Amino acid sequence: MNTIRVGVNGYGVIGKRVADAVLLQSDMDLVGVADIATDWRIKSAANRLPVFASTIEAQQAMRGADVPAQGVLDDLLAQCDVVVDTTPKDVAAGNLERYRALGVKAVLQGGESHSTTGHSFVAQANYASAIGRDSTRVVSCNTTSIVRILGALDAAGLLLRARGVLIRRATDPWESHLGGIMNTMVPEPTIPSHQGPDAQTVLPGLDVVTIAAKGAHTQTHSHYWTLQLTREATRDEVLDALRAAPRIAFIRMSDGLVALNSTVELMRDLGRPRGDMWEVAVWEDLVTVNGSEAYLAYQVYNEAIVVPETIDAIRALTGTVPDAATSIRLTDESLGMRQDFLTPAEEPDHDR
Amino acid sequence: MNTIRVGVNGYGVIGKRVADAVLLQSDMDLVGVADIATDWRIKSAANRLPVFASTIEAQQAMRGADVPAQGVLDDLLAQCDVVVDTTPKDVAAGNLERYRALGVKAVLQGGESHSTTGHSFVAQANYASAIGRDSTRVVSCNTTSIVRILGALDAAGLLLRARGVLIRRATDPWESHLGGIMNTMVPEPTIPSHQGPDAQTVLPGLDVVTIAAKGAHTQTHSHYWTLQLTREATRDEVLDALRAAPRIAFIRMSDGLVALNSTVELMRDLGRPRGDMWEVAVWEDLVTVNGSEAYLAYQVYNEAIVVPETIDAIRALTGTVPDAATSIRLTDESLGMRQDFLTPAEEPDHDR
Amino acid sequence: MNTIRVGVNGYGVIGKRVADAVLLQSDMDLVGVADIATDWRIKSAANRLPVFASTIEAQQAMRGADVPAQGVLDDLLAQCDVVVDTTPKDVAAGNLERYRALGVKAVLQGGESHSTTGHSFVAQANYASAIGRDSTRVVSCNTTSIVRILGALDAAGLLLRARGVLIRRATDPWESHLGGIMNTMVPEPTIPSHQGPDAQTVLPGLDVVTIAAKGAHTQTHSHYWTLQLTREATRDEVLDALRAAPRIAFIRMSDGLVALNSTVELMRDLGRPRGDMWEVAVWEDLVTVNGSEAYLAYQVYNEAIVVPETIDAIRALTGTVPDAATSIRLTDESLGMRQDFLTPAEEPDHDR
Amino acid sequence: MNTIRVGVNGYGVIGKRVADAVLLQSDMDLVGVADIATDWRIKSAANRLPVFASTIEAQQAMRGADVPAQGVLDDLLAQCDVVVDTTPKDVAAGNLERYRALGVKAVLQGGESHSTTGHSFVAQANYASAIGRDSTRVVSCNTTSIVRILGALDAAGLLLRARGVLIRRATDPWESHLGGIMNTMVPEPTIPSHQGPDAQTVLPGLDVVTIAAKGAHTQTHSHYWTLQLTREATRDEVLDALRAAPRIAFIRMSDGLVALNSTVELMRDLGRPRGDMWEVAVWEDLVTVNGSEAYLAYQVYNEAIVVPETIDAIRALTGTVPDAATSIRLTDESLGMRQDFLTPAEEPDHDR
Repeated sequence: MNTIRVGVNGYGVIGKRVADAVLLQSDMDLVGVADIATDWRIKSAANRLPVFASTIEAQQAMRGADVPAQGVLDDLLAQCDVVVDTTPKDVAAGNLERYRALGVKAVLQGGESHSTTGHSFVAQANYASAIGRDSTRVVSCNTTSIVRILGALDAAGLLLRARGVLIRRATDPWESHLGGIMNTMVPEPTIPSHQGPDAQTVLPGLDVVTIAAKGAHTQTHSHYWTLQLTREATRDEVLDALRAAPRIAFIRMSDGLVALNSTVELMRDLGRPRGDMWEVAVWEDLVTVNGSEAYLAYQVYNEAIVVPETIDAIRALTGTVPDAATSIRLTDESLGMRQDFLTPAEEPDHDR
Repeated sequence: MNTIRVGVNGYGVIGKRVADAVLLQSDMDLVGVADIATDWRIKSAANRLPVFASTIEAQQAMRGADVPAQGVLDDLLAQCDVVVDTTPKDVAAGNLERYRALGVKAVLQGGESHSTTGHSFVAQANYASAIGRDSTRVVSCNTTSIVRILGALDAAGLLLRARGVLIRRATDPWESHLGGIMNTMVPEPTIPSHQGPDAQTVLPGLDVVTIAAKGAHTQTHSHYWTLQLTREATRDEVLDALRAAPRIAFIRMSDGLVALNSTVELMRDLGRPRGDMWEVAVWEDLVTVNGSEAYLAYQVYNEAIVVPETIDAIRALTGTVPDAATSIRLTDESLGMRQDFLTPAEEPDHDR
Repeated sequence: MNTIRVGVNGYGVIGKRVADAVLLQSDMDLVGVADIATDWRIKSAANRLPVFASTIEAQQAMRGADVPAQGVLDDLLAQCDVVVDTTPKDVAAGNLERYRALGVKAVLQGGESHSTTGHSFVAQANYASAIGRDSTRVVSCNTTSIVRILGALDAAGLLLRARGVLIRRATDPWESHLGGIMNTMVPEPTIPSHQGPDAQTVLPGLDVVTIAAKGAHTQTHSHYWTLQLTREATRDEVLDALRAAPRIAFIRMSDGLVALNSTVELMRDLGRPRGDMWEVAVWEDLVTVNGSEAYLAYQVYNEAIVVPETIDAIRALTGTVPDAATSIRLTDESLGMRQDFLTPAEEPDHDR
Repeated sequence: MNTIRVGVNGYGVIGKRVADAVLLQSDMDLVGVADIATDWRIKSAANRLPVFASTIEAQQAMRGADVPAQGVLDDLLAQCDVVVDTTPKDVAAGNLERYRALGVKAVLQGGESHSTTGHSFVAQANYASAIGRDSTRVVSCNTTSIVRILGALDAAGLLLRARGVLIRRATDPWESHLGGIMNTMVPEPTIPSHQGPDAQTVLPGLDVVTIAAKGAHTQTHSHYWTLQLTREATRDEVLDALRAAPRIAFIRMSDGLVALNSTVELMRDLGRPRGDMWEVAVWEDLVTVNGSEAYLAYQVYNEAIVVPETIDAIRALTGTVPDAATSIRLTDESLGMRQDFLTPAEEPDHDR
């Protein structure tokens, strides 16, 4: 099998992580990354990756800033089977026709609308329907986590209705000097917030309503859910349903993982690149079931959670790996995904 | 009618506000305040209020710090009909027998447990049942807001079930150098959190479950609710039910009041003492009703919201004002309580 | 003597405080305030002050938002002797010709450059030179504090050279949801920062260099100084020099005033409008003198410190009060300015 | 040459980084780490390192928590040539006699006082004097940075007098839920702060005074200096002096590295373990020289900066590497230390 040649347009929070994850896949080659920045972000990248300018103007600016660009976006695209577009909101929508014209398949990100590609992607939920398409949209970090969690309960036949409150981090750490919030919270200006309908682009049958607000921190989102179950269930049934799904890990208050920063520090201790957590981290000891009602709280590392989905989406579009389970396994083994951060990591079983 | 002689034991966040509110009541006299602090907090108070030492040791320390104490707690109590105890959690429980032995009625605060006094108080809900008692407990800021809001909907026959997520401020501004949280959130270690059962100490019939977490800010709590109504209702019915209850004010995103700090600044602009907001501030334009389900978000100024309840509790214990409506009106007029902060303040109608 | 008719153009952080301070002056009338906002800020103002629209467009928008504007800026100016322009940076410069054409004297704020008016103002330093001018600029909060402190030491013949590090609050509380910094510090992009030269527009002889950075808080600036004295001096000499100057107050770590928020809370306890502190708060027990070198730290309440200077500037331009000392006394008594926040406030001596 | 057998007592912020750095040294073996924690911190460590209990009680507790401890501290010490003690402040002082009794050399950390070991260590300044000693103290993060920077200028004959303002991060990220500061700054209660004298324990001749305060962020300290030079010098002379010293790297505002968080993000992009920065990061374009006065600002990654010094201190005590330059080179190559983060990393020259 030939490797999939992948380009990344947009070398920001998501783009740089996707590029690094592509480098870890034995069935993919990273052709390069494109951006318009000329500062430390791209200078640092240029020391280890092929860098392209997303625009002619950016090419000019890169020359002026001594960034060794290897060409412009078209030069990158000419060598790619798939491009992952992680440019800012709404920019990718404008790029899509260009990708199509060049016959390059495209993975867009959650800032774009569902209608742009007509397909929204979370690997465990709808990998199959993306196979062979020319494009798909990996949904946002919040939506990805919702689909993973609610999808897991739905797959187990347990979920009737979900009502969630999402407290988002205000801004990403790298840009926290540019514009954040200070000593306040900022509720979304409408209820319901958009994440519920967004999750329905992947799982149309979900009965889900979300309320969202920004909190005064830069690290990870956290979600708090009240779930109406289809029937009275035990706590173990709920936990088993979550365990049966990929990319969900349990953390525990009783282990001292009592706050968002604790989990972030644990990721650093685990030696993860950039301290990333690709899993949704569910507080196991907060999972509470009372009759047919369940309560859940989990943490979403917004900078990284969509990276494995993006890798799977690349495979799905090309059709080189026909089933979700295999792609998820390949991705997860390459990253070192875990179901529990404190038990010894399992040795990958290369026979299975 | 004789004025009620009131002492305040504990001159902290709540105690100092209660003292100031007592000074505004025409039917009350502030005998003095007692504390163990000897620093700026009590030095500043001593320039304008009679200060007592809560303990013998504190009296000694006050002498050493040139704080002109007028005696110890017993000297204060000897002159009081009612004492408001705002000492730290669990201290008041130990003080209660002393108050009883001296025949001084006592208002405790929400840090104490319900069983300490056997009565938990929110004026609009159960003023009558406090009349003539020797003590009551004004419930905490979060619980007070829950009883006001859910109680209003319950009184209108609209509330079936309430599920709320409470994001608490991490610490009060005055002590934010001593121990807060930084760049994180800290969920309560159990679900449900204690506020639901606490609200049931005032309104036993409520079907309410809360999930709580601390946010990385110092100003005000915010609550996000999903409400199951008893029937399909219109948005106006929900708003009318809230408007019919006291101490609830509407704010609007459309007026630019889009975040916790906006409302805090408005209170400063209104010239309120310490910038206090005694009302629960409901975002009117976030009130959403969908069939028999309603969604709400509101803001709780935790430093001040229990002050009017405490004033009413003083009256209820003494029995000098026999009905809740009259006491609430007296308190609210003295403070300048409002239903809407941006319409011109109503002139008090002294004939009604 | 006729009262001075004052208008305020720009009802923001400074403008609203200036308006309130004008209302307290027995020799001034507030004609009204003008702004372009149509949200809660101006709606709240309109309930208690005459509001004008700064522009025709704003007048239109105010009508649409039910803000009862009494006219446009020209209508306001037609009734004014002096206008205080607190519009955002560089806007006032464009307004100045208009004020001049209408014969209205103008007080600009520190966001403007010195050259716009040709005169920069701090009451204690150069009140006399502003008398009769058509305009002056009250320097910024940081610069005002520098002139007060260094000017006091200079006036006592003690100051040779001053090197300061200024840690600025990142944003004002009211706008902390719009754009602040989070979990970081942001140094000014050049050393020296502009505040040193800015202080020299008022006190040309100062040998002063400043380094500045933004800190991750919203409340007050703090300055840390190393001062080369003209000779070996005692700590008392330095303290006496500071005490001899107006609008400097001492706070003490030993009183528990150990952090920026402590002082802010004290202002709230003192019942000050919006919790304002107009004084520079010098930590008395941090004043350290070692031979001919002194070290100082103080706190600058940036939202309020220029208010008294602005009031004095109004008087100076009109020439109605010929000397600085009298104007400063009138202003300070009206506001309740203090030299020490914890000693009993002095009764104003109306005979002096 | 035999490898040095190293144990680490205290697996906290510093201890865990020292353990990882020891693993990278070809002339050292990590025997194990000891701690009293039983939560996620030690559970995660136990999956990849030999873990010991620092006390008998801790051994008991580890058993109860299923942490597979390999023995107690004495068992660890029995196998060690050198122990690095990173236990909390003042604990190590009590441990030292025990280490001495067992003939294990000890590296203590900056929380301890100089007198405990009688020797304070910064590799570039006084490696030689530590050779053969039974113990030394690696000075604190702030002091290490001061010695590196001022020492570099002193070594070049340029430094007469240094006056610095140190803004410390309030707490480390991992414990930011336990007790930080919020929306304030907290000045040290004395001027000068202790860092100046502490630097003099390593470089006795320095004329240095520091003022310190805590800022409301969790990431890295920043220092702002006014330096009196021994003579008029050029900016290039100052830069050259800094370049000639080890473990100082230049960052530039012009590269977009404009705030503390920018540099932290760059470290994550560089793939460093835990995003660590062992270098002092000096803002090159903020280095300003005016006659015989220079101004500097730099950033100190407090969690990591003392790690290379600790590694060198291990070598110095054992005497296995007789000169500072060789030890520094070994350490720096193993970690990937850099002088500039944006130029391509130099290939280690194994011939030199």
